[in-house]
Amino acid sequence: MMDIPSADHASRLAVDLRSDTVTRPTPEMLARMLTAELGDDGLEGDPTVGALEAGAASMLGKEASLFVPSCTMANLLAVLAQAPRHEQLVLESSAHMYTSERGAATLTGVFYLGVPGQGGAMDTGVLQETLAGGGHKLRSALVAMETSHNNAGGTVLPLDHMRSVSDLARQYGAAVHLDGARLCNAAVALDVPPSEIARHADTVSLCLSKGLSAPVGAVLAGTRALVARARVLRRMVGGTQRQAGVVAAAGLVAIDAMRARLAEDHARARNLSAALNALGGPLLASEPQTNIVQVDVRATGRDSAFWVAALEGAGLRVRPWGAQRLRCVTHRHIDDASIDQAVAAFDAVARSLSRAAAGQP
Amino acid sequence: MMDIPSADHASRLAVDLRSDTVTRPTPEMLARMLTAELGDDGLEGDPTVGALEAGAASMLGKEASLFVPSCTMANLLAVLAQAPRHEQLVLESSAHMYTSERGAATLTGVFYLGVPGQGGAMDTGVLQETLAGGGHKLRSALVAMETSHNNAGGTVLPLDHMRSVSDLARQYGAAVHLDGARLCNAAVALDVPPSEIARHADTVSLCLSKGLSAPVGAVLAGTRALVARARVLRRMVGGTQRQAGVVAAAGLVAIDAMRARLAEDHARARNLSAALNALGGPLLASEPQTNIVQVDVRATGRDSAFWVAALEGAGLRVRPWGAQRLRCVTHRHIDDASIDQAVAAFDAVARSLSRAAAGQP
Amino acid sequence: MMDIPSADHASRLAVDLRSDTVTRPTPEMLARMLTAELGDDGLEGDPTVGALEAGAASMLGKEASLFVPSCTMANLLAVLAQAPRHEQLVLESSAHMYTSERGAATLTGVFYLGVPGQGGAMDTGVLQETLAGGGHKLRSALVAMETSHNNAGGTVLPLDHMRSVSDLARQYGAAVHLDGARLCNAAVALDVPPSEIARHADTVSLCLSKGLSAPVGAVLAGTRALVARARVLRRMVGGTQRQAGVVAAAGLVAIDAMRARLAEDHARARNLSAALNALGGPLLASEPQTNIVQVDVRATGRDSAFWVAALEGAGLRVRPWGAQRLRCVTHRHIDDASIDQAVAAFDAVARSLSRAAAGQP
Amino acid sequence: MMDIPSADHASRLAVDLRSDTVTRPTPEMLARMLTAELGDDGLEGDPTVGALEAGAASMLGKEASLFVPSCTMANLLAVLAQAPRHEQLVLESSAHMYTSERGAATLTGVFYLGVPGQGGAMDTGVLQETLAGGGHKLRSALVAMETSHNNAGGTVLPLDHMRSVSDLARQYGAAVHLDGARLCNAAVALDVPPSEIARHADTVSLCLSKGLSAPVGAVLAGTRALVARARVLRRMVGGTQRQAGVVAAAGLVAIDAMRARLAEDHARARNLSAALNALGGPLLASEPQTNIVQVDVRATGRDSAFWVAALEGAGLRVRPWGAQRLRCVTHRHIDDASIDQAVAAFDAVARSLSRAAAGQP
Repeated sequence: MMDIPSADHASRLAVDLRSDTVTRPTPEMLARMLTAELGDDGLEGDPTVGALEAGAASMLGKEASLFVPSCTMANLLAVLAQAPRHEQLVLESSAHMYTSERGAATLTGVFYLGVPGQGGAMDTGVLQETLAGGGHKLRSALVAMETSHNNAGGTVLPLDHMRSVSDLARQYGAAVHLDGARLCNAAVALDVPPSEIARHADTVSLCLSKGLSAPVGAVLAGTRALVARARVLRRMVGGTQRQAGVVAAAGLVAIDAMRARLAEDHARARNLSAALNALGGPLLASEPQTNIVQVDVRATGRDSAFWVAALEGAGLRVRPWGAQRLRCVTHRHIDDASIDQAVAAFDAVARSLSRAAAGQP
Repeated sequence: MMDIPSADHASRLAVDLRSDTVTRPTPEMLARMLTAELGDDGLEGDPTVGALEAGAASMLGKEASLFVPSCTMANLLAVLAQAPRHEQLVLESSAHMYTSERGAATLTGVFYLGVPGQGGAMDTGVLQETLAGGGHKLRSALVAMETSHNNAGGTVLPLDHMRSVSDLARQYGAAVHLDGARLCNAAVALDVPPSEIARHADTVSLCLSKGLSAPVGAVLAGTRALVARARVLRRMVGGTQRQAGVVAAAGLVAIDAMRARLAEDHARARNLSAALNALGGPLLASEPQTNIVQVDVRATGRDSAFWVAALEGAGLRVRPWGAQRLRCVTHRHIDDASIDQAVAAFDAVARSLSRAAAGQP
Repeated sequence: MMDIPSADHASRLAVDLRSDTVTRPTPEMLARMLTAELGDDGLEGDPTVGALEAGAASMLGKEASLFVPSCTMANLLAVLAQAPRHEQLVLESSAHMYTSERGAATLTGVFYLGVPGQGGAMDTGVLQETLAGGGHKLRSALVAMETSHNNAGGTVLPLDHMRSVSDLARQYGAAVHLDGARLCNAAVALDVPPSEIARHADTVSLCLSKGLSAPVGAVLAGTRALVARARVLRRMVGGTQRQAGVVAAAGLVAIDAMRARLAEDHARARNLSAALNALGGPLLASEPQTNIVQVDVRATGRDSAFWVAALEGAGLRVRPWGAQRLRCVTHRHIDDASIDQAVAAFDAVARSLSRAAAGQP
Repeated sequence: MMDIPSADHASRLAVDLRSDTVTRPTPEMLARMLTAELGDDGLEGDPTVGALEAGAASMLGKEASLFVPSCTMANLLAVLAQAPRHEQLVLESSAHMYTSERGAATLTGVFYLGVPGQGGAMDTGVLQETLAGGGHKLRSALVAMETSHNNAGGTVLPLDHMRSVSDLARQYGAAVHLDGARLCNAAVALDVPPSEIARHADTVSLCLSKGLSAPVGAVLAGTRALVARARVLRRMVGGTQRQAGVVAAAGLVAIDAMRARLAEDHARARNLSAALNALGGPLLASEPQTNIVQVDVRATGRDSAFWVAALEGAGLRVRPWGAQRLRCVTHRHIDDASIDQAVAAFDAVARSLSRAAAGQP
């Protein structure tokens, strides 16, 4: 009889809302890692990796998928596999691939062009104009979307919008990539299977280590031909690993068992937002569509750096999102009590600020 | 009491000498993976990854090291961190980085220049001429060596040679990288600590998943400044992972407990070579310095593709190494009986060939 | 006695306001080309090229300059010489280097980041935020400005703005490049020597073949060290030529004799604008600061493509600038009579449109 | 009546055998430059450029050609137009594109792989093995040849060899580029029209400014589709110029009137070689196939740097070619008297060396 120690024993001194990337593997994941059948994924393949790739492809409604070390690599391979040198990737200008993965652009010989958007959704008028090109403009080989959209606060792209973008891209001969780092959150929010979202893209990345709680890894899904091309490119950037089944095993649990529970994270994000707005003070919490709440601190007279430090002192970890906002992300290690603790921390800091403003100690 | 299942239960139908990359994690590795303390290596760091990075740095005599998904990525990061765009990496023309990782070159804007060598050691005369440059030649920013040297048959670079290369590089202002995918094999063969070899380079990569048997991963070691630069670049290529401690835990066992036993692999490689040459037939086995035996099949009248297939039929898996040679690699799953089986397989194929040549059934 | 044929004999069937790039060399230029002392600029240098490089450097107040085939190449070399791989070039998002030279970006491994602006001047708040960077943002190695600014309609950057940008860049350790394709137009408009503008940048490009009328060529000016670096890079991209003095000779006339007359082009642009606005119809002409007039045709109910074709029929060539605007550029081949012809052509098309709208033939 | 001054008046103090790149434009070229009809080659085209492009295409037996600033750029565009990112260009390892234009490689994302050769001709066995690829090898998208071959001493590739290379490339799906910097020298040496050589390649570059004496410029010829692609890429690297007809005019004279006279240069190269070998001393001159003579100075006990300086003192300019050889190139400014002067200079230096060796003053 196997006695799996809980990875959850890690220090819980603070409530950590910085990111859902902090989630630790579940006991079931660790158990599966232990018993996974292994092979050499740089030679004929690792059977557990193969099972994960098949499972993820099926979930996403694609012919095939590829296991990679990170979602950043999945996105990079999608660009390399679909956008030739000297052509253009068009994406919403606050997309994670544009704001935080632009270093990858410098490796590709592909021009990353950001276009303006609302709530993470590109302005389709500007998109059309861009795709139409002309003059000495570069050809747009690829269009990328992101859902749920990190920088826009976990917003979910409407399926109609995705279809419009996809239709425009097809009309102008461009391929479509979907950065699905948090695709399962979007699917839960829309109450559709992930494949209903993924169908609007030629390639889809999916991160296994955010809300889905796997320790590491992501997949890139698409046609068999595109995935074969990405497999060659994966070796090139150093993403091919040997007995990768040890971690793919956790990924299998992630896609099989961890999707349904994301609804809890979303509910707790809504509770957090409601409670913060109910404090009646200067804090303004966004209405979350998924597991991300942005808190605007402008009216408090202090910037996000102040708030991050003050909340840390009060037992709550959050991340600054620009100078005037904080980002709070709910995940598997956040239960109802954590939300209460978080609200209490915000309240304590807000009160001390108003006391200070009133000249009180 | 924990009952760790053995990963070694995997099918042993054939003796697999194709590569030491096929090694599966040890029970101790799986146990450590299960109990590893984890963190977010994309945020403040994962403690188990930190322990591996410290341990590997210490073993290699460097200030710091970085955990990466593969040795290919470690080598790529070493180039990106040390060779500016439009400058040159000089390496022996049969080095793995030149023959098998040249796709990486196309991502870097760095020119990979192969120079001729013997037994994996660059011709230092040609190297000097290249470093001296002049005219409209590109500047050589980086020189790379490899030990033990895969394509040269697991040969070990003499320390004197390494010192000469390093001195030349320093003289001309170039940095030195060591592709140490099998550095521990070289150290065991020379009977020196790994740091005695690594001291001749500014950066050193080390693969954890070959003879050392970890399932995945490698490290890149160097000065603190270079490792910090490589850490930024790792994120760019998608090599940054979150709770990477689950696999770094296996890496810790690899560097702590698995080095000493490489001597067994070397002994078995020598036994294999001696036994093959003792068959007295047309097979010519190289004299191995480490765990790689190359078998020249030219005199058998059949090419390497024939031999690979025929040996597979006889229960032995090896890899073709060009048209006229086979590569056999010993590792943790190869015991004395496996060597006997391997020799028997070679003998059986050779006999059937000579019978066929003699017109016998 | 030399009898130089005039290049101006070329067909004048239409008034050509498409661009000042259409200007043909002057008789003096042709004469100088004929008698230029020549050498091998790929070996020890061509004396006439040397004279041009010295003259341009002096005019721009820089230590040195480099003769190149085009201003696009000058801008590309400025990036390659000052921005390392994986770092960022920041520029106003309608700058020519961003809208029309972005293909160059795909050769460089440098990320081109467009920031919003007004009249060609970057929003310095956004610039500062970008330069400050942080998180996993790329470092900004280079900031580029453009004056006069082509896409903004020939606007001239205020020197105060240039100083602010330059100060910000210096504060954050970034270099500054000035795309001075039409720098002499800006200098004439501001009534300052070109060096007064160029002093706000580390490198400056200058096109010899627009208003200055040389047939081909541009220069890149900066410190001796930067120009030496650009010289090496020029060979790399194929910009090094042999007896380049034959065309540099025309460039010498361009910088010596052709700057003062740009004031005429500016005056005629103002006349054109005033006359078009005086027509009292739906055409809306911009108030030009230099030699470019943008004409908004939105209120005419027809798009720019219609107007380009209709004006061509009426003996006037202009270029569409997006769907609703036309661009008219004055230059050496446009005299007062040409302006009258141009206005007449606009008037004729406008009248026929209003007749059509009124149902008249 | 036009009185064209001779560009040949330039100082003739020394006989300059360094390169045929030093040739100055002929009076006829200057005359044509003066009267060329001009247009804007960045807009609808320049008629004189168009005439040159048509003439060069016809001479090379190709559908179309493109005028570019240099042969280095022609070669770069040939690579960018035919080799996708992450694929391979295969060429003889002493080819000019490999030894001196490798900086271009770092802009392309294409791997330049040098293979060994004899007299500039690739070893076709190694070529075949390379094209066959396999394993994780990069695909070879392009094969390049060079004739006459600069580093091999102006050798001319046999047409049979070119056909073999071309057939191999076609067999493996690779395109073929010919670096024809000195293609006309090869054609004269083989006594075939240039098109007979060019037919073995998909794209051909041709330098107008070496033996053909134009001041600047080169062409790249191929199918209409490839040339259209190269035209787009030319703008990207800054090779598009405006009234380029002023220099294309000289190019027209180069291809029309200057090819036949190359036979004279070849004859003088043979005379130079014969006379040097007839000196009976330690100098060893190569037997030239075209206009390049390599002189081996090893047996003189002095290196090439010594000889270059000593010959300069004796009124002769040559270039070192490695440490033990000199390169002498005949061209339009070298007449029979120049050859006599050159031989005399070699003789004088050799005699003073032997006197010194004998201890005489």
